[in-house]
Amino acid sequence: MRVLGIDPGLATMGWGVVDSGVQNPVFVACGTINTSPDTLLQDRLTQIRQGLQDLLTTYQPDEIVFEELFFARNVTTAFTVGAARGVAVLTCAAHTPLLYEYTPMQIKQGITGYGRADKKQVQQMVMLILKLNAVPKPDDAADAVAAAITHLNTGPAKFQFRMK
Amino acid sequence: MRVLGIDPGLATMGWGVVDSGVQNPVFVACGTINTSPDTLLQDRLTQIRQGLQDLLTTYQPDEIVFEELFFARNVTTAFTVGAARGVAVLTCAAHTPLLYEYTPMQIKQGITGYGRADKKQVQQMVMLILKLNAVPKPDDAADAVAAAITHLNTGPAKFQFRMK
Repeated sequence: MRVLGIDPGLATMGWGVVDSGVQNPVFVACGTINTSPDTLLQDRLTQIRQGLQDLLTTYQPDEIVFEELFFARNVTTAFTVGAARGVAVLTCAAHTPLLYEYTPMQIKQGITGYGRADKKQVQQMVMLILKLNAVPKPDDAADAVAAAITHLNTGPAKFQFRMK
Repeated sequence: MRVLGIDPGLATMGWGVVDSGVQNPVFVACGTINTSPDTLLQDRLTQIRQGLQDLLTTYQPDEIVFEELFFARNVTTAFTVGAARGVAVLTCAAHTPLLYEYTPMQIKQGITGYGRADKKQVQQMVMLILKLNAVPKPDDAADAVAAAITHLNTGPAKFQFRMK
């Protein structure tokens, strides 16, 4: 099974593709979709949709998992980050109905066994689990990879994480 | 010129279509796109996209104007309302790049000449301006109609309200 992880954001949307392996999950690819604050919102959202459609076509994931938005500096920021996530959810839903969502704490718990682990600990564990020579870069891509691994490791319990 | 006004929301998205008339704006149609809280987010966003695409096909607006999101009970609500708005902006952007946005206060000012007018005063003025026999229903549809009228009445100054 192939999982696409997404860490939603308007300026930077992290993504990571991981396959289920015989023993450990297998890293496929990761990166970010970036949009400029100098660009109109409508064009940024269109770029996110296009970028995601390209990823879906290229990697053909079976299931897609989002890191849940948990925090925003203020309501205005929440509206725009929410817009980016909404476009991502819409775009992914056209590829598969199998969308899941984990909180940052659930992902930390899933990767390190400890819900309050710091970002560095999570990234080190991701590197070890996937047998990589370096931590995935940038941070948003690493977060998306961590979300995908968490989902693969959750097993049959994953259905409780279906996106509502 | 034909304007589509949109009052974005996830459960209820108000819309109203108004034409520029020889003297006064002319009412064309209004309504709401509704999604159920019992439905998965991905399906609600897909319904909003489909509903808007149907409106764009039916009414072929030249310009589209949004009422700006200004308030949310909390950040979580802002994420979901923002998702609905994001999908609406994305969908409209594929029809025309001419997207505008007014704050609730600018719309009240535009309709009644007074930025702190209450909802009832705005609706009464909308009814008078459009020579309707009743206030447009429901409230979200009336708000969208008010946004469209505001835009038509703004004249050349409208460019400062381009959506960023």
